[in-house]
Amino acid sequence: MTVLADYLAARQGEVDRALDRLLPPVAGPAARLHETMRYAVFGGGKRLRPVLAIAVCESLGGRVEDVLAPAAALEMIHTYSLVHDDLPAMDDDDLRRGRPTAHKAFGEAEAILAGDALLTLAFEVLASLPEGDAAAPRRARAVALVAREAGAAGMVGGQSADLTAERTAASLTSLEWIHAHKTGALLAASAELGALHAGASPEDCRAFARFGHAVGLAFQIADDILDRTATAAALGKTPGKDERAGKATYPALLGVDASRQEADRLAAAARAEIPAAARERAVLDELARYAVERGR
Amino acid sequence: MTVLADYLAARQGEVDRALDRLLPPVAGPAARLHETMRYAVFGGGKRLRPVLAIAVCESLGGRVEDVLAPAAALEMIHTYSLVHDDLPAMDDDDLRRGRPTAHKAFGEAEAILAGDALLTLAFEVLASLPEGDAAAPRRARAVALVAREAGAAGMVGGQSADLTAERTAASLTSLEWIHAHKTGALLAASAELGALHAGASPEDCRAFARFGHAVGLAFQIADDILDRTATAAALGKTPGKDERAGKATYPALLGVDASRQEADRLAAAARAEIPAAARERAVLDELARYAVERGR
Repeated sequence: MTVLADYLAARQGEVDRALDRLLPPVAGPAARLHETMRYAVFGGGKRLRPVLAIAVCESLGGRVEDVLAPAAALEMIHTYSLVHDDLPAMDDDDLRRGRPTAHKAFGEAEAILAGDALLTLAFEVLASLPEGDAAAPRRARAVALVAREAGAAGMVGGQSADLTAERTAASLTSLEWIHAHKTGALLAASAELGALHAGASPEDCRAFARFGHAVGLAFQIADDILDRTATAAALGKTPGKDERAGKATYPALLGVDASRQEADRLAAAARAEIPAAARERAVLDELARYAVERGR
Repeated sequence: MTVLADYLAARQGEVDRALDRLLPPVAGPAARLHETMRYAVFGGGKRLRPVLAIAVCESLGGRVEDVLAPAAALEMIHTYSLVHDDLPAMDDDDLRRGRPTAHKAFGEAEAILAGDALLTLAFEVLASLPEGDAAAPRRARAVALVAREAGAAGMVGGQSADLTAERTAASLTSLEWIHAHKTGALLAASAELGALHAGASPEDCRAFARFGHAVGLAFQIADDILDRTATAAALGKTPGKDERAGKATYPALLGVDASRQEADRLAAAARAEIPAAARERAVLDELARYAVERGR
């Protein structure tokens, strides 16, 4: 996986620099808010969503700079969802990637607000028009598609269904719905956003949305497997927490082996969605494989 | 104020119908999320922000339907900010407009998610293009301007500065900054959004932003006065809470009389900003007056 490792390292660096440029400086009467936003964003994330958007854009012949700011916006949305998810009223996590979670470091109120501000900033970035009015249809579409996948019909809907499922016995169907929304939706949006900013056809945009969706599901199953098999040190958080919390997981419902097979199947299905217009597909192939191999 | 009363009643009804159409139905695996969103939105709000946007649009010769969906999006943002503000980690309010707050009725986790989903839906609505690509520059601008005023540099920044101020002795300068951001920013965005959707010039859009900003400050001072002088029944929430929480307020810093004078001055300043292009200004004049007279 050296192609992917080199690619990830280079693009993660570009995403981090874009985030640093786009986030407000730690100054003024709301300095503590800005500090909390930066603490949450610069916490060692893999930048999977922005890298996926950039990789899709590049596979179609687009340039990194065509999609860099929108890609950084995806990371803001992902980060906000983690900050709110970690809150005591939600998953009540003290650690995230080996560091205190935002509410542990800055207090609950500031963590709630930092999440709100990151989500809002993401849409400001997606809508802003450095390229002038000619790019406006693409920008408006980017906002609409990301909002659709991140909101009640997508990611937040998945989180809510996850809360409801904790109180009932979840079936595989319900678990798949939750993962598809909680994780798949924003990855689908990431891949579609990359295609949109490369100027892809509506058909190819939809194919990439399906690609991202399948990668997201595979990724989440790998996450479930890791939660059962990995150590706290390797995970950067407490393992086994989901199962103890009574949350349904793929390994709990299917067993570890069948879960691995399902993740493999989804990764293959994702690769089959990559349209012919993607002339450079090595990185995308490896991204789909990476999503499941981290669960090994 | 019968001109305004009739106008408010008619436009509030249209805003409520638009909100009902735009919010997801209570169904599917995320039904509880949708129910929480609707509970929070249909809680008897005055719809001041959408009505302001519509009134500005109409004053410039625009039609209600040009701005109705974007106006409803403003109410979603206002509602999300109240839901998060009422949380135990923030203001810890049990009552809002005489009813249990969203987290009291549906639990904290669902209230956090409903706020997130309302904020996200607002941007989806602002960016959506029923009018086709010709409206894209206006839609992209609408998203960018609302996000700027609602986020870290606007409303959320004001909330965070308010938290910081609770721990220090706030001056009048700091209180004005907080009110200008916490309340003024979204009202400025509302007026500017109305002008934008009426096709106003950039100068007139900016004039209306200043109008909304001044109305917002006047409104917030009137709110501070009400918090000190009104009864719980009239207020629909516990009065005197801000002062007991050690929060600075205009009456605490200036006294009630000087606060009323400052609100009057701001309402007059707001009216002076209304540009000549606004041919129908009776409703706008009365809206500015209404903002302060509720504090009587």
